[in-house]
Amino acid sequence: MGDRFDHNGLEILTDEECWLLLGAHHIGRLAVVVGNEPEIFPVNYIVLDGDDGPSVLFRSSEGTKLAGAVLGGSVAFEIDAADPLLHTGWSVVVRGRAVEIERLDELLDVEALPLRPWGPGEHRRYVRIVPEAVTGRRIVHRPIDN
Amino acid sequence: MGDRFDHNGLEILTDEECWLLLGAHHIGRLAVVVGNEPEIFPVNYIVLDGDDGPSVLFRSSEGTKLAGAVLGGSVAFEIDAADPLLHTGWSVVVRGRAVEIERLDELLDVEALPLRPWGPGEHRRYVRIVPEAVTGRRIVHRPIDN
Repeated sequence: MGDRFDHNGLEILTDEECWLLLGAHHIGRLAVVVGNEPEIFPVNYIVLDGDDGPSVLFRSSEGTKLAGAVLGGSVAFEIDAADPLLHTGWSVVVRGRAVEIERLDELLDVEALPLRPWGPGEHRRYVRIVPEAVTGRRIVHRPIDN
Repeated sequence: MGDRFDHNGLEILTDEECWLLLGAHHIGRLAVVVGNEPEIFPVNYIVLDGDDGPSVLFRSSEGTKLAGAVLGGSVAFEIDAADPLLHTGWSVVVRGRAVEIERLDELLDVEALPLRPWGPGEHRRYVRIVPEAVTGRRIVHRPIDN
């Protein structure tokens, strides 16, 4: 296997493939560190194309654990899809920093986007993940021996 | 709304409902802390019913970041399902400690289980999440104003 596969035999997706997959889906999971323990939340998201490249945008409630945990800190955001019967699937992870959108012009821009929060309740804060790295893996064959 | 709903209007699932959902699915995401940063991995898993209650079992490769990160540490494991069009969905999170199964009798027991790793490659280690808490939320209605 060449450079396109990692040491586990998974196909390594290019950044472009990762962003195409991110753009085609709308529910992911955000992992953050709270008091040195991992937390994980489902979020609805969209990909925001900006002058500085694509980023991931989602909404958050005021005063929640999520809001407190993510802002300014490192986050890992994951999407995946799988076919358990065929044992195929892929996963994309975006690592970066979460920043709140506070500038009025930016808020007006994102308010116009078709972005719903994952659950009900008030989700007034817009959080953007500024990506530092995006990685993706795809299962391309059925393993024989395990 | 009564005790069955949290402050965001999400229905709180009982432990029993959470384990039923966990038992009915086989792909989840594991969040761990590596060097104070969150990492997230898709894993195939099964629920193991033991004398001390149910736990989550998955396989891991030798020497990977995953293997190094999870053992002994706090982990958060999440499954979810969603219908984006209807804006319904649910999410279950298991928090606990990850321990490797090393006793020969236990290994022989789990080797007999229908547990496949998420990707190809050798996944010789069996990791069990000993749950400290399980929480679940379900979206039960369509939000009107956000």
